[in-house]
Amino acid sequence: MTIGILKEPKEESRVALLPEAVKTLLSWNAQVIIETDAGLSAFTDNDTYKAVGASIKSRAEVLAESDMICSIQPLSQEEISKMKPQAVLLGQMGALFNPELTKFLVQEKRTAFSMELVPRTTRAQSMDVLSSMATVIGYKSVLLAASSLPRFFPMFMTAAGSITPAKVLILGAGVAGLQAIATAKRLGASVFAFDVRQAAKEEVLSLGAKFVDVEGAKEDKAAGGYAVEQSAEFIQKQKDTIHEYAAKSDVIITTAQIPGRKAPLLVEERTVLAMKPGSVIVDLAASSGGNCALTQADQTVEINGVKIIGVGNIASELPQDASKMYGKNYINFLKLIIKDGEINLNFEDDIVKGTCVCHQGEAVNSRISEMLTQ
Amino acid sequence: MTIGILKEPKEESRVALLPEAVKTLLSWNAQVIIETDAGLSAFTDNDTYKAVGASIKSRAEVLAESDMICSIQPLSQEEISKMKPQAVLLGQMGALFNPELTKFLVQEKRTAFSMELVPRTTRAQSMDVLSSMATVIGYKSVLLAASSLPRFFPMFMTAAGSITPAKVLILGAGVAGLQAIATAKRLGASVFAFDVRQAAKEEVLSLGAKFVDVEGAKEDKAAGGYAVEQSAEFIQKQKDTIHEYAAKSDVIITTAQIPGRKAPLLVEERTVLAMKPGSVIVDLAASSGGNCALTQADQTVEINGVKIIGVGNIASELPQDASKMYGKNYINFLKLIIKDGEINLNFEDDIVKGTCVCHQGEAVNSRISEMLTQ
Repeated sequence: MTIGILKEPKEESRVALLPEAVKTLLSWNAQVIIETDAGLSAFTDNDTYKAVGASIKSRAEVLAESDMICSIQPLSQEEISKMKPQAVLLGQMGALFNPELTKFLVQEKRTAFSMELVPRTTRAQSMDVLSSMATVIGYKSVLLAASSLPRFFPMFMTAAGSITPAKVLILGAGVAGLQAIATAKRLGASVFAFDVRQAAKEEVLSLGAKFVDVEGAKEDKAAGGYAVEQSAEFIQKQKDTIHEYAAKSDVIITTAQIPGRKAPLLVEERTVLAMKPGSVIVDLAASSGGNCALTQADQTVEINGVKIIGVGNIASELPQDASKMYGKNYINFLKLIIKDGEINLNFEDDIVKGTCVCHQGEAVNSRISEMLTQ
Repeated sequence: MTIGILKEPKEESRVALLPEAVKTLLSWNAQVIIETDAGLSAFTDNDTYKAVGASIKSRAEVLAESDMICSIQPLSQEEISKMKPQAVLLGQMGALFNPELTKFLVQEKRTAFSMELVPRTTRAQSMDVLSSMATVIGYKSVLLAASSLPRFFPMFMTAAGSITPAKVLILGAGVAGLQAIATAKRLGASVFAFDVRQAAKEEVLSLGAKFVDVEGAKEDKAAGGYAVEQSAEFIQKQKDTIHEYAAKSDVIITTAQIPGRKAPLLVEERTVLAMKPGSVIVDLAASSGGNCALTQADQTVEINGVKIIGVGNIASELPQDASKMYGKNYINFLKLIIKDGEINLNFEDDIVKGTCVCHQGEAVNSRISEMLTQ
């Protein structure tokens, strides 16, 4: 079989598989073809791919010759149509929230897997791109905040007096939030974190941060570790607490997202106006509406001296290590669907089934079939 | 007496004295007048200055009415002429290497102090702006490097495999270099440092970094802690050692400067070409010619995938804390020349004498008089 890697769109610097991952595929007796310059924005040239045994081809050749294509950003319908009818397509398609693409894949009787569908189980952890990219995003969000802040993060005791550490408030202690906490602590900031899930409290404390408690949150174990929607009363209490902490904070990093819905509003306009000039808000939920009322997606705005950074595809800004982690996730998943150098789909496996968008046009998992009937 | 604070030029975000420093001056029975919006780029508005008891005035008023002006960037000759004849001017004028301005101050029979002349003695440490700004510069240089690197600084052990820590090589372990080492270590990098001064070795090791030894360096205790020029043989050995370490490094931060001379060339073109694509060089000596052969001052260039950042006035990019530290240094120095709310210059004091450019047109310290006769 032949596995193809495409050059991602211009705004994406990562590549699905770096040469080290390609090497693993080759050791499974697969062929690997790489679109010219696919790795360049991740600082990997064609020769480095050739050196491990991959072939460099044009985009048209990769689309036409591959039995399997691994991408990060979803392909266009036009390009999907150029693939072999039986070829397997893998990417991060946002399949549950992209009905147009999902319906197209079904109509065209395609076989496709979407990596954000990987179940959030222990066995699937090594394939979880959302989790590995959240690590990248949490780390980068702190670098962005520290670079934008007109103050130090760490404390200093110098001959000329002392500098107090920056106060950093992290909203949401999922993987991105926890990584942001860890990175801000590393840099010497005083860190406060808030999450509606009590389970997060212990993790926050173990990283040396303080946990901001707001009582009365609803929890849902079935939400796969995600936060769920809350009562109006709780939401107001939450906003008030955040308002109170924000006025004392130099940095707020917001990470609260609910899959497929608008991000919850946590930082109101009055809260931004109560912050000190020079403060920075990094909104990691900017692309799904933002956790801050004044966030503009993919833009940095300044209101009363407070900088609000509406973060876009920030994982793409650490392209080498982000691609490396993405590739590891891919390899771990591909192990389940490649046997003896050939595609071998076992839908008895909950990970294979759960990650599948459709197999020859048929939805094989309930999340997708429910979504298609809506 | 009236002390005036000017708005710094457009490219400078710091301000000489923040409100907290102004408060101290007022407690000494001095008046303080602030140019409109002087603090804005350091996120401090006119009202905050007024609240501590300063008056807000136009630039022309501050120049005409002040008995003492504290600035950071040097004033133009035209503006100096607008000051009262007896007024005292303080700033960071680079007096020893700016003969035009120094000669002008002498001709005009001015009294001026230049903060970079503060002697490097223990007693003067609390007034040493070079040292406090080097702390800012070292910290910011690492944020710049980490933000530009396509890789993580810290090590990660994740479900999807492990990420090795970034290798950071710091050239020059003065205050900026030591702060860069400390910040890179905080962020989890593996840090190597090089300095011609053996005294730096212990400090490097105490920060948890490895010291790169090149034997045969010349040292000069009289150089006030600065490195001195080296033999051709040593310089070649040094370049070879740096070349060897560079190829294994993800980041190089160069900090080697010799006051008033071109910065030493430490990173040759062949060394840049031997580095991995995606690597980053932050050249803190860019404005004095650069430690890297391919550095362009105030620009970022990319050669073979290696980013070379020719750093400009980076202390200005942390304007709040940098201004705070600058102000503390100023207050500690002003304590020596203000008594009972009046200017009182005691040239018996080695710090007052050493920092003085000229007093009523007379050079009072040997470094300036030597420079004037050259």
